[in-house]
Amino acid sequence: MSSDIQAEMPPSSLAKAIQFGPFTVTSQVFYKTPLSFCLVNLKPLLPGHILVCPLRRVQHIDQLSAHEVTDLFSTVQLASRTLKRVYNASACNIAIQDGEAAGQSVPHVHAHLIPRSDGDMDAQGGGDKIYEQLEGDEGDVGKHQREEEGVRKGKFPKVEDDKRKPRSMEEMEKEARWLAEEIQKDAQKFSNESSL
Amino acid sequence: MSSDIQAEMPPSSLAKAIQFGPFTVTSQVFYKTPLSFCLVNLKPLLPGHILVCPLRRVQHIDQLSAHEVTDLFSTVQLASRTLKRVYNASACNIAIQDGEAAGQSVPHVHAHLIPRSDGDMDAQGGGDKIYEQLEGDEGDVGKHQREEEGVRKGKFPKVEDDKRKPRSMEEMEKEARWLAEEIQKDAQKFSNESSL
Repeated sequence: MSSDIQAEMPPSSLAKAIQFGPFTVTSQVFYKTPLSFCLVNLKPLLPGHILVCPLRRVQHIDQLSAHEVTDLFSTVQLASRTLKRVYNASACNIAIQDGEAAGQSVPHVHAHLIPRSDGDMDAQGGGDKIYEQLEGDEGDVGKHQREEEGVRKGKFPKVEDDKRKPRSMEEMEKEARWLAEEIQKDAQKFSNESSL
Repeated sequence: MSSDIQAEMPPSSLAKAIQFGPFTVTSQVFYKTPLSFCLVNLKPLLPGHILVCPLRRVQHIDQLSAHEVTDLFSTVQLASRTLKRVYNASACNIAIQDGEAAGQSVPHVHAHLIPRSDGDMDAQGGGDKIYEQLEGDEGDVGKHQREEEGVRKGKFPKVEDDKRKPRSMEEMEKEARWLAEEIQKDAQKFSNESSL
């Protein structure tokens, strides 16, 4: 019983509900700053594919204040460090679709971060496929979240013919708790280095 | 005579040579801050495709200082505003290939900015093709710069079978001067708004 309750709790310090566009994603969140947050994905394109967003829901980067931009991208920097470390990756794709015509599916600024290693996309047709997927159905985080809400509300049973299954809440929360611990290590280390 | 000299001069205030990886790109630069700069592309994937870089040559975002990250992304924000305005675009793709395994071709942090409008990629096969091109030969800014250096030095005559021709220095400098004027308007406006 207590483990059930535990599984539904967001990582500590994330008690307040967090919105990504119209979606409540609190239990997917693994890091939160005064102005930004990081969340794990329902259907990552590769392991470690996460999103970094400003807490305030605006569609375009040019609607963010100077403080929000600084906070958002220092969080992107920190998260790229953690992803590369914990996924043993040598590189990271960072992509922002700023507006619908650029492929944005949720009208809330979000940076995709995808840790990359040599040959990691060979099975899917090569490295450039990551972007094709990001733009296509596979990367449509809005569609995935809508499906997830449907599943949770029992309204829109998800029917899909591709092989990737949306992950369970439990799986996402487990990853969120793990990344929450790991990113804290880097945040602490970085903060120590900066104050030297 | 004076117009020839004029055509070879970088936009004012950019007298000092600016390096993008191993390449001198001074005359392609249209905006410079204390820690960052914006440059036009030799072979833009779409009109308005530009790069934003830190002045210091490091390969990865996590090698940048907090000040450099703040300066870089406030410049990305400003440039996205200018590109959308002057290209009458509703959106913008922002992409960073942080490391070779992510498709980075020049080991110097750079954000690709590509203004986007509905249907702008229809002739090339749809919106997701922009990323395929970014990852492929078309988006290889290192290859393009190497070819340009070859052309300038008369060493490696460029042979290419695709239809896109690298632009002339004159064309790039003309665009750089135009964008230099336009981004100053937004920088001024933004600065006024921030100080209200």
